[in-house]
Amino acid sequence: MADSNALEGLTQALRKLPGVGAKSAARMAFHLLQHDRPAALQIARALEHAVSSIQHCSLCNTLTEMDVCSTCANPQRDRSKLCVVETPADQAALERTLAYKGLYFVLMGKLSPLDGIGPNDIGLQKLFDRVVPKDGSGRPLPPESREVQEVILATNFTAEGEATAHVIAQALKSRGAQVTRLARGVPVGSELEYVDLGTIAHALVDRR
Amino acid sequence: MADSNALEGLTQALRKLPGVGAKSAARMAFHLLQHDRPAALQIARALEHAVSSIQHCSLCNTLTEMDVCSTCANPQRDRSKLCVVETPADQAALERTLAYKGLYFVLMGKLSPLDGIGPNDIGLQKLFDRVVPKDGSGRPLPPESREVQEVILATNFTAEGEATAHVIAQALKSRGAQVTRLARGVPVGSELEYVDLGTIAHALVDRR
Ligand SMILES: [Zn+2]
Ligand SMILES: [Zn+2]
Repeated sequence: MADSNALEGLTQALRKLPGVGAKSAARMAFHLLQHDRPAALQIARALEHAVSSIQHCSLCNTLTEMDVCSTCANPQRDRSKLCVVETPADQAALERTLAYKGLYFVLMGKLSPLDGIGPNDIGLQKLFDRVVPKDGSGRPLPPESREVQEVILATNFTAEGEATAHVIAQALKSRGAQVTRLARGVPVGSELEYVDLGTIAHALVDRR
Repeated sequence: MADSNALEGLTQALRKLPGVGAKSAARMAFHLLQHDRPAALQIARALEHAVSSIQHCSLCNTLTEMDVCSTCANPQRDRSKLCVVETPADQAALERTLAYKGLYFVLMGKLSPLDGIGPNDIGLQKLFDRVVPKDGSGRPLPPESREVQEVILATNFTAEGEATAHVIAQALKSRGAQVTRLARGVPVGSELEYVDLGTIAHALVDRR
C-alpha cells in the first residue's frame, strides 16, 4: 500500500484478527499510524500484558489472571451445581439473570468436527475429572461422595452446541452423574405467531 | 466478560480500531488468547515497530521508513508533474494503471469541515510549499522557474474529495500554477443504461 515494510508487516499482522480482511487491515494500519499512534501503542501493550498474565482457571477453565478465578473462589456459591457453558460471554449472560448461584465450567469452545475441533481441543477431560474425581487409588469416587451433584448443560442451542451437550451428557451419565439441560422453549415476552416452528415444537415436548 | 482486568483492558484497547465495536473487540480478544497467542504477540510487535519506524516522506507526505520515499527518490520519474491523492491506497491504484510516470503528493486525508478536518489537518501547506517554493529572499519563485509544472488533482469524486480539489485548485491557480483534474466520465466497459445520471451528465460536459 505505501512505501514501507513495517506498514506491510502491520497490515499482515492485523489480518490475523478474526473477521479482518486485507482491506480492513490496511484501513486499520493507516488509521493508527496517521491518526492515533497512542492507540497503536496502547493496543500493543494490552496484547503483551494479556498474553503474559492471562491463564485458564484451574477449576473452571475460564480466562483469568489468578490460579482460581473469582467465581470459583467465591465461598457464597453452591458448589454442588456445575453449569457448563461454551464461553465466558455465555457465563456472563447467565450471571446477569441472577437466577443461578452454582459454579461454572467454561469449555472455551464447542465440538466442531468439521473444523477439526474434537474433545481434546475443548476442556472435556478437565470437566470429567472435575465432576468425577478419583480417590487415592485412582478409582472414580462414587456419586454420593462427589462435590458436584448436578451438571447443568448450558451450551448454545445450535447444532454444534447440541452435539457438544449430547457428548458430555452421555459421558457423564455413564459415570453416574446427574445431568440436566437448560429448557428449550418460547422466549419470555414473545408472541407465538412470531416464534419459529422448531422452538414451539420443542416447547411442547418440554412442557411442564 | 471474564474474570480479568487484562482481558478487559485488551478489549477496550481493541475498540480503538476503526470499525470495531464492543462485541467485535471481545470476540477478537477471546480468539487471540484462546486460539492464537502467537498472533497476539505478532500484532503487538508489528504495531510497536511501525510506530517507531514509520514517518512521513519529506517530499510527498506518504508513510515511509525513509526520509524520502522510494517513489520520490526514483530518478526515472517525471519531476515536472505532481499528482495529488488522498491516501497511499489511491496512489497505489494510480500506479497499477502504469499510465502515470510523474510524482505524487499524498494528502493523508481530505477536507471534512463536519469532522473538524481543515487545511492544517491535511498536508495543504506542505503541498503549497512544494509547488510554489520560495527563493533565497522568501519570495515565491516565478512559475517558469518551478520544478512542478503541472498539478493533477486526483482526489476522490466524492463531495469531500471534490471540495478538497476545489480548495487546492483555487489556492494553486492564484499562485500561478497549472492545475488539472482527473476526467469524470463513464467507466470503461460499462453500458450507459446502467451508469448513474450524474456520471453521464459529467461525461457530456467533459467530452473531448
Ligand atoms: Zn474458575
Ligand atoms: Zn515521497
